[in-house]
Amino acid sequence: MKILLIGAGGVGGAFAAIAARRDFFEAIVIADYDPVRAEKAAVADDRFTAAQVDASSQASVEALCREHGITHVMNAVDPVFNMPVFEGALAAGADYVDMAMSLSRPHPDAPYARAGVKLGDEQFAQAGQWEQAGRLALVGMGVEPGLSDVFARYAADHLFSDIDELGTRDGANLVVTDDDGNEIFAPSFSMWTTIEECLNPPVIYEKARAEVDGGWFTTPPFSEPEVFDFPEGIGPVECVNVEHEEVLLMPRWIDCKRATFKYGLGDEFINILKVLHTLGLDRTDKVRVKGVEVSPRDVVAAVLPDPATVGPRMKGKTCAGLWVTGTGKDGEPRSTYLYHVVDNEWTMQEYGHQCVVWQTAINPVVALELLARGTWSGSGVLGPEAFDAVPFLDLLTEYGSPWGFQEVAS
Amino acid sequence: MKILLIGAGGVGGAFAAIAARRDFFEAIVIADYDPVRAEKAAVADDRFTAAQVDASSQASVEALCREHGITHVMNAVDPVFNMPVFEGALAAGADYVDMAMSLSRPHPDAPYARAGVKLGDEQFAQAGQWEQAGRLALVGMGVEPGLSDVFARYAADHLFSDIDELGTRDGANLVVTDDDGNEIFAPSFSMWTTIEECLNPPVIYEKARAEVDGGWFTTPPFSEPEVFDFPEGIGPVECVNVEHEEVLLMPRWIDCKRATFKYGLGDEFINILKVLHTLGLDRTDKVRVKGVEVSPRDVVAAVLPDPATVGPRMKGKTCAGLWVTGTGKDGEPRSTYLYHVVDNEWTMQEYGHQCVVWQTAINPVVALELLARGTWSGSGVLGPEAFDAVPFLDLLTEYGSPWGFQEVAS
Repeated sequence: MKILLIGAGGVGGAFAAIAARRDFFEAIVIADYDPVRAEKAAVADDRFTAAQVDASSQASVEALCREHGITHVMNAVDPVFNMPVFEGALAAGADYVDMAMSLSRPHPDAPYARAGVKLGDEQFAQAGQWEQAGRLALVGMGVEPGLSDVFARYAADHLFSDIDELGTRDGANLVVTDDDGNEIFAPSFSMWTTIEECLNPPVIYEKARAEVDGGWFTTPPFSEPEVFDFPEGIGPVECVNVEHEEVLLMPRWIDCKRATFKYGLGDEFINILKVLHTLGLDRTDKVRVKGVEVSPRDVVAAVLPDPATVGPRMKGKTCAGLWVTGTGKDGEPRSTYLYHVVDNEWTMQEYGHQCVVWQTAINPVVALELLARGTWSGSGVLGPEAFDAVPFLDLLTEYGSPWGFQEVAS
Repeated sequence: MKILLIGAGGVGGAFAAIAARRDFFEAIVIADYDPVRAEKAAVADDRFTAAQVDASSQASVEALCREHGITHVMNAVDPVFNMPVFEGALAAGADYVDMAMSLSRPHPDAPYARAGVKLGDEQFAQAGQWEQAGRLALVGMGVEPGLSDVFARYAADHLFSDIDELGTRDGANLVVTDDDGNEIFAPSFSMWTTIEECLNPPVIYEKARAEVDGGWFTTPPFSEPEVFDFPEGIGPVECVNVEHEEVLLMPRWIDCKRATFKYGLGDEFINILKVLHTLGLDRTDKVRVKGVEVSPRDVVAAVLPDPATVGPRMKGKTCAGLWVTGTGKDGEPRSTYLYHVVDNEWTMQEYGHQCVVWQTAINPVVALELLARGTWSGSGVLGPEAFDAVPFLDLLTEYGSPWGFQEVAS
């Protein structure tokens, strides 16, 4: 297996650090638009080399694949570049893995009621070409989407006979402090992407509505607030509906009445996002400011600490998981939360990467190892729930990062 | 009287429109850094001419004064340029009027407890030179500071025998709508200046503390929230302490136990300012954003509608006033609100300028007319409360914009 890792940012850097400890691949070419960043990530292992790439250009991706005899493209750039990377991989005859899917566009007439172009629609539209070529695009293979989808498959195969709701729930108790020890506002994930996913109309799936738009519909941002009690000491966090890939992926492979994604943003973060939207600071088009042109959302991201650098000043745990309700294998009502908790102190000490990007990055490494072994195989455009969950969860535990599940009051 | 108006922005433009209807001056030279803007404002009257000026250069201001035989410099630019304009006027032997005073700097050790360099300190430090030259600098002569200070003098001379608190209270019920009639967030005054005054430590005066820093002290931003019921249908608005010139000016001429300024920002605006501060978007130093350098605060101002252009889409009234408590002339406890309310519909129809800038601009026109008549005269650096309030209030009423007062529950 020869991997082309595109993107040496927070998640890409953590991917390289995790992969360096495994022997399932021959080589990884680490490519970034910024060659210095690529070289920095490539020093970790003899099997790593650095390259420059323009992720917005299918031709640039394809050429790099051919030059290095790449078998698998690992996409770790912003999903705005998904299509050229995805198409470049297929053109070069490589398999493909990503952690977020092609972007959505709101419904032109009813943005907060009907789904428009959905997350992943552009990628699924090309599924036939991938099948014909006998190539695999494993999409949404981070932690959420990714591990959450693996949990859905596990729940369907081993815990439930009938599923009411597949409810991804993400929460954390992370706190970042400044040099004086004062708590500061510092998102642990890309602010640009957080704004994108939180202000887009959240999407929900309901089987009973399948005749309209396939069962997918949208709501206004921050809908259906709910306090979810996260495990391992994180505790209760306010969660709201957010647009996320799980809602689009899970119902394609797993029979369920409803699929949702709720993000434990907390009151403060929700308020900040609402204010940014009120002022228009979430805008991505450029505005003229005293002789220069900038995108307001880029400015918001630029004034905040870089998520890749906050690790040493961060404390706490992050939890990704799936709350499944329905009927258990014993025919009794069941309500179970399958989860994966990571402590920032542990990831910083073990890998030198903060827990949120580390938790995202470990899952595609595990998936690629299963593909290298042939434990997982397939062709077309497939989500993580299209594969057997057990070997994935076992290998995740073998990597030193176990998962768990517990019954919850529904 | 030959006036040099420096600054042809929102307030400068309204000043020119109001002055055009009066005959107390021979000429006004309207100068701006942007000569097009100056020329646009100068078309309103035959006595107006346009010029280019660099308000950050004392020499540029002085030269322009000499070239046109200026007797009075009217400063209508951002207070960051106060000192070069103020010093340029004196160097040229002209009198001077402004509407905001030289800027403050927080106390280095206790920014939210002790006053550092206060608003106007730099100007008052040069009072001796103005006195020696026999020239007058009338500072803080807009609406607030300005008319509020005239109210303080009126209250002391005609309504009260003893004053507990001089509490400026500013509130409005202005609403701006977009082309579809939906309410939008659009400040009616410079967002840059609003952030500056609202996030600076608010200053309060208490006579009992006169031995420390002259009685002036500071608090954290947004302190002492209070709902004040504004007259003429505006109604209750949440007000908080804000740094403002009145608190520095009034106690210099009027005996009072306490002086405060509270701004009716309302919950939504306070929340927005807090979020901007949390994120660091109030910063004025430049940050690097994808290859260009911008000041985040400039970006915030740039994404919002220009206050000078919102007039036609704005509805409602703005109120400036002074809440005075103490003992009345009859020896009984008294609590009176002296106020000036302006309706945006009226200013747009009569003058083509929105009410907030118009209300700021009318007061220096009235003051200059009193100086031209010799009704007001003096030398040194003086606030509006150093002069007799009655002729000012009478002339304001003659201009068609009456004031009022009412007793309020204290």
